Amino acid sequence: MTNLAISNIRPMGGVSTSILIENGRISTIGGAIPPGCPTLDGGGRLAIPGLVEAHAHLDKTLWGMQWYRNEVGPRLIDKIDNERAAKCRLGIDPARQSARQVALSAGHGTTHIRTHVDVDTDGGMAGIEGVMATRAALADAVDMQIVAFPQSGLLVRPGTLELMDQAMRLGADVVGGLDPCAIDRDPKGHLDAIFALAQRYGRGIDIHLHETGEMGAFSMELIIERALALGMRRNVVISHAFCLGMPDPAAVARLVDALAEAEIAVMTTGTPSRPVPPLLALREAGVVVGSGSDGIRDTWGPYGNADMLERAMLLGMRNNLRRDDQVEQALDVCTHGGASMMGLADYGLRPGCPADMVLLPGSCVTAAVVSRPRDRIVLKRGKIIAEAGTAVFTTL
Amino acid sequence: MTNLAISNIRPMGGVSTSILIENGRISTIGGAIPPGCPTLDGGGRLAIPGLVEAHAHLDKTLWGMQWYRNEVGPRLIDKIDNERAAKCRLGIDPARQSARQVALSAGHGTTHIRTHVDVDTDGGMAGIEGVMATRAALADAVDMQIVAFPQSGLLVRPGTLELMDQAMRLGADVVGGLDPCAIDRDPKGHLDAIFALAQRYGRGIDIHLHETGEMGAFSMELIIERALALGMRRNVVISHAFCLGMPDPAAVARLVDALAEAEIAVMTTGTPSRPVPPLLALREAGVVVGSGSDGIRDTWGPYGNADMLERAMLLGMRNNLRRDDQVEQALDVCTHGGASMMGLADYGLRPGCPADMVLLPGSCVTAAVVSRPRDRIVLKRGKIIAEAGTAVFTTL
Repeated sequence: MTNLAISNIRPMGGVSTSILIENGRISTIGGAIPPGCPTLDGGGRLAIPGLVEAHAHLDKTLWGMQWYRNEVGPRLIDKIDNERAAKCRLGIDPARQSARQVALSAGHGTTHIRTHVDVDTDGGMAGIEGVMATRAALADAVDMQIVAFPQSGLLVRPGTLELMDQAMRLGADVVGGLDPCAIDRDPKGHLDAIFALAQRYGRGIDIHLHETGEMGAFSMELIIERALALGMRRNVVISHAFCLGMPDPAAVARLVDALAEAEIAVMTTGTPSRPVPPLLALREAGVVVGSGSDGIRDTWGPYGNADMLERAMLLGMRNNLRRDDQVEQALDVCTHGGASMMGLADYGLRPGCPADMVLLPGSCVTAAVVSRPRDRIVLKRGKIIAEAGTAVFTTL
Repeated sequence: MTNLAISNIRPMGGVSTSILIENGRISTIGGAIPPGCPTLDGGGRLAIPGLVEAHAHLDKTLWGMQWYRNEVGPRLIDKIDNERAAKCRLGIDPARQSARQVALSAGHGTTHIRTHVDVDTDGGMAGIEGVMATRAALADAVDMQIVAFPQSGLLVRPGTLELMDQAMRLGADVVGGLDPCAIDRDPKGHLDAIFALAQRYGRGIDIHLHETGEMGAFSMELIIERALALGMRRNVVISHAFCLGMPDPAAVARLVDALAEAEIAVMTTGTPSRPVPPLLALREAGVVVGSGSDGIRDTWGPYGNADMLERAMLLGMRNNLRRDDQVEQALDVCTHGGASMMGLADYGLRPGCPADMVLLPGSCVTAAVVSRPRDRIVLKRGKIIAEAGTAVFTTL
């Protein structure tokens, strides 16, 4: 039985049609609306699949808290140390803050989130437990994957590996990692440890790799070797991967080919101030590319609003995507790309898929990306979770 | 006599105070509001000076026109040739389109605009005349400077230099130029021609310099030599200046010092996909830095919305400005920096200056930059020209 029909709607900016939803899934696109069926007038809007936030840090945003005046030092370790201290001093509650960001994300049209959650010897399981509480409370709004993330270092801070193990037992979905050379000072040790953990729990890996140039390329090679040796195809993600923005095109091409062969996905936010992976070249080589907001309004910096449509715009600007077909690829990274990266089974605007979608004004997909209209209606499994760009559910 | 008082307003996010306006100028900050004086309740908002759009292309935006599907080729010359043809084919009317962008800009809080206007052998004076019509029609909303801009090349297209001369006679304020090596293939010839034109009319120069690396550095040296030799201190602007983003720090430092000595200003949009001038290093060296939207929604690309608060955010992201005091510098580029670049005499939130300002929600300047609230009240010479982010005047 059809539970909801959407009339006068233009999937991906195509011709106006109808979408029928049955038991939370898209049953038909273009079918006649059954008499008496509850119908949402699409008003000629675009429909796009639910946006995929494939790299967030929900546990530590300051969204909705008093303004934090950032005076932190320039080094990575300054930011890491400052944050660990600030969490306590400012009272950054992972459950409350993650719920706030989920509501913000849902308002913008995000229906799936992968979040990295800090695991360290100061906070222990506080982050994991807080975000798990939000995941349970807001399960009707978003599907969430939790990555146990050793933000302060793994081997350099004894006790962290045991906490990572505990996080996986508690319910984290993915094993995280961080700069095996630059932060942990022991690339073999770091990578052997996180791959062993992933193998123990039969889970994937999503590693932050900020390392640039040849150092990052070396770490990336070590990751690729392990992914291949351990049969972890499609189960490893490298986030940021700044080394793929290095100036040596032959070295980058070799890495891109190796990533494609190992079926390792790349997450890029299109960071404007750093070298970034070449989005189109990766996709042409067959590498899955997802994107995310990374940290928003936290002790690292004030930017970000968790809008994945704005992220598509920033990816487009960073990668100099000017043609409409190129901007459409940027949006694809923020929808299907992220979904593939997260291993989502049935995602998209197709019959049979969960009815996760965003209805928004705009003549075409590119117009929507560059205009980022606030006026969005968001459906999750066929239910409206946001209207006029604002979540209809409430959080703390 | 005080014409308008603004109560409960926080200049630059400071403590709540009053601003009194007399004959279109700020007369007092913090004074008592005279009995019976018309009063605008600031409601605890921030006040910042009117935003300065120091680099626009008003004559050729497609804003408000039917969506243009961009399928243009990858080279600079592809975009230049495509645009010249599209102007005619699409009916891009310079008067109508510039008025539309002025209204959009004013809604976001822009009170001053420097616009480059195409001068070429196809369009002749059409752009200059159209934008001059808008300048006259909307003189109460924005102050506008017009740069005669040889977008299609100067010496490579015979007849263009004569048209540039005609544009200056008609009422253009500044002589433009474009990539003397890469486009015009004759750096000495190009620069001698535009400097001679500037000298003839006693006007300044604002040259587009997209040239990267050593080629751009060479062109920049030629510009600096001429500015010094001709006594044009404070009267030359180099727009984009991508060569200042070259990887050789010693070469960049030499150029920055030379720009400071010659008092040449730099305009940067913080282009995410190109090397960009180092914003903080330029300011530290004493170089005036302004910013602008560059082209918005035109045949070059779909991005942009003419919001200079968003531009401050993009500058901050591109230059990795994370601390509040750094983000404040990005906004300063989009206000005082642009004003200095344009040579505005009395600009700012100070008694005696024209009452050009933006009133907007936010706890502090950095919060406003990263949040880009739409809800802005904009005053030009003490009169409200925009409310709720929308211009109160109408255009075609």
